[in-house]
Amino acid sequence: MPQTPLTVAELSEAELLTRIFPRLELGASHSAAVLLGPGDDAAVVAAPDGRTVVSIDTQVQDQDFRLRWNNGYRTTGYDVGWKAAAQNLSDINAMGAAATSMVVSLTMPADTPVDWVEDLADGLSAAIGKLGAGSCSVAGGDLGRGGELSVTVAVLGTLSGGQPVLRSGAAAGDTLAIAGNAGRAAAGLALLESQHPVESLSPDLRQLLDLQCRPEPPLEAGPLARISGATAMMDISDGLVRDGTRLAIASGVVLDLDPGMLRTLTVPLQPAAALLGADPLAWVLGGGEDHGLLATFPADVQLPPGFTGIGSVQARGTHEAAGVKIAGRPADSVGWDHFAD
Amino acid sequence: MPQTPLTVAELSEAELLTRIFPRLELGASHSAAVLLGPGDDAAVVAAPDGRTVVSIDTQVQDQDFRLRWNNGYRTTGYDVGWKAAAQNLSDINAMGAAATSMVVSLTMPADTPVDWVEDLADGLSAAIGKLGAGSCSVAGGDLGRGGELSVTVAVLGTLSGGQPVLRSGAAAGDTLAIAGNAGRAAAGLALLESQHPVESLSPDLRQLLDLQCRPEPPLEAGPLARISGATAMMDISDGLVRDGTRLAIASGVVLDLDPGMLRTLTVPLQPAAALLGADPLAWVLGGGEDHGLLATFPADVQLPPGFTGIGSVQARGTHEAAGVKIAGRPADSVGWDHFAD
Repeated sequence: MPQTPLTVAELSEAELLTRIFPRLELGASHSAAVLLGPGDDAAVVAAPDGRTVVSIDTQVQDQDFRLRWNNGYRTTGYDVGWKAAAQNLSDINAMGAAATSMVVSLTMPADTPVDWVEDLADGLSAAIGKLGAGSCSVAGGDLGRGGELSVTVAVLGTLSGGQPVLRSGAAAGDTLAIAGNAGRAAAGLALLESQHPVESLSPDLRQLLDLQCRPEPPLEAGPLARISGATAMMDISDGLVRDGTRLAIASGVVLDLDPGMLRTLTVPLQPAAALLGADPLAWVLGGGEDHGLLATFPADVQLPPGFTGIGSVQARGTHEAAGVKIAGRPADSVGWDHFAD
Repeated sequence: MPQTPLTVAELSEAELLTRIFPRLELGASHSAAVLLGPGDDAAVVAAPDGRTVVSIDTQVQDQDFRLRWNNGYRTTGYDVGWKAAAQNLSDINAMGAAATSMVVSLTMPADTPVDWVEDLADGLSAAIGKLGAGSCSVAGGDLGRGGELSVTVAVLGTLSGGQPVLRSGAAAGDTLAIAGNAGRAAAGLALLESQHPVESLSPDLRQLLDLQCRPEPPLEAGPLARISGATAMMDISDGLVRDGTRLAIASGVVLDLDPGMLRTLTVPLQPAAALLGADPLAWVLGGGEDHGLLATFPADVQLPPGFTGIGSVQARGTHEAAGVKIAGRPADSVGWDHFAD
């Protein structure tokens, strides 16, 4: 008879924390920025330049991930932990900052297996390490029960004395550039929602699926862009056109995308598009969740490593709205909105 | 025909934010600590002494509050917003720090009425203002959908150059003191779970119910305790005995409560205890959620305003475990654990 797994209902909060803390590499090995870690009512984190960058984001089951996808893939705790960390680290990256710490609040149904939670802690920790947020560690958190799985991360970061890169600074004549993946997580999502089981996928296709479950934001690129003089920046979480429109509106400009560069971005997506009968350009333009960076740089600045030019910033014409164009024509692909159906 | 209320499903995230932001008094009037508020990927908050205190906490429907209680009371959005703010501000208070900002992540079912969410923003804002967290404002947040209502707040604070007051610093000979309410929120919970409708309650009883829904942590007391030389401190969220035991274990001491002082604390609870046939001492010893402070001070320190001595710190006897006693006998009342049933 298979053993029923140990559930969180069978442990006290203290017992569960005892299983999680070592996986977050807390204690002696935590980052120097965490001056006081878990165990008290609050943590204390260094803010060396007298400021801290802060962001918060929640992942909820059946909204941000499915526990079981249409193609049979089961989301692991590791996936959820990784994604929660990656998505939040990306928000700090998008300001041109480096993460110093995160606090995590985990809400779980009583029947959640303890090993699923341990796996989540492993995923969180792995994302921090492997994505290059080497100065970041988990400073504290909160565990509680609920009817559905939900993970909220608040992340703190430092600008190391520099100015944050806002969405509002793009100017006509700037170069528009991206760093990181574009459309891969969207292609992965389409594979997860398809009839093609994981086992049937080639390594290339499997990688796309993996990038939906465990996105890889380019965490070195944000601070590099700030140092290189980026005029505006944001992370692409809802799609290139939708997020680009936000940046364009905040800056009062038009972003004009180069169709040739967009076609280049579709290349790694073409096998998945062929398998699913999908348009890879729609993934590039409308897909979020890769958490790449969209940034603008003065035309005379050499793009920092990791960035690729994909267009230019233009002044709005008379009576023209701020927005995104492709070779001078309004882009009509849209990304994702959490509320409007 | 009654109009069906506008739900969050009918608005885009941007439209919903437009309704919430003014209620959080963002913009020109936000606190000086928030250097960059909502609208970008992350906020920037001042950390004047080069450190930031940080904590995170989640409220979930049917766990931390019921939308409708046994006695017919319906939890308002205002209640939930207030409680989420109060509980988190208390964690900063318990370190001896003052809150500088909070970021809020709100998860809501699609059928959540928009005015309920507006009410929540009002409650959050009111708690910050009325509880005396005058230097705090909402720096940013996240809105998303889920199957149940859930509010996570991460709060940042400053120690103004001082040292955080930990749980681990209590020493034999110290005075044990509390600030804020004790047992009132627990009495309020008992009223909510009783058969006595709100309308039938006297003003005194109604006040207890209100303190369960909208607790009033003594936010001035934490920094005062730090400045006065408190040796250990924590907030009482799970009950005096349970939280006291945590402080005792962290400090390796015994806390001995004075039965006379405990009886004094039961006075405001006696009408509710009489109505419900309950023991008011059990509320004082076991009730959390008032978010009072439990602190220890050297015996020669005059207790700062707001604190009342309730006992003393004693060395452990040989082979004696750290813990809480009442007049030398082990206290056996327990508080609340989120996991163990």
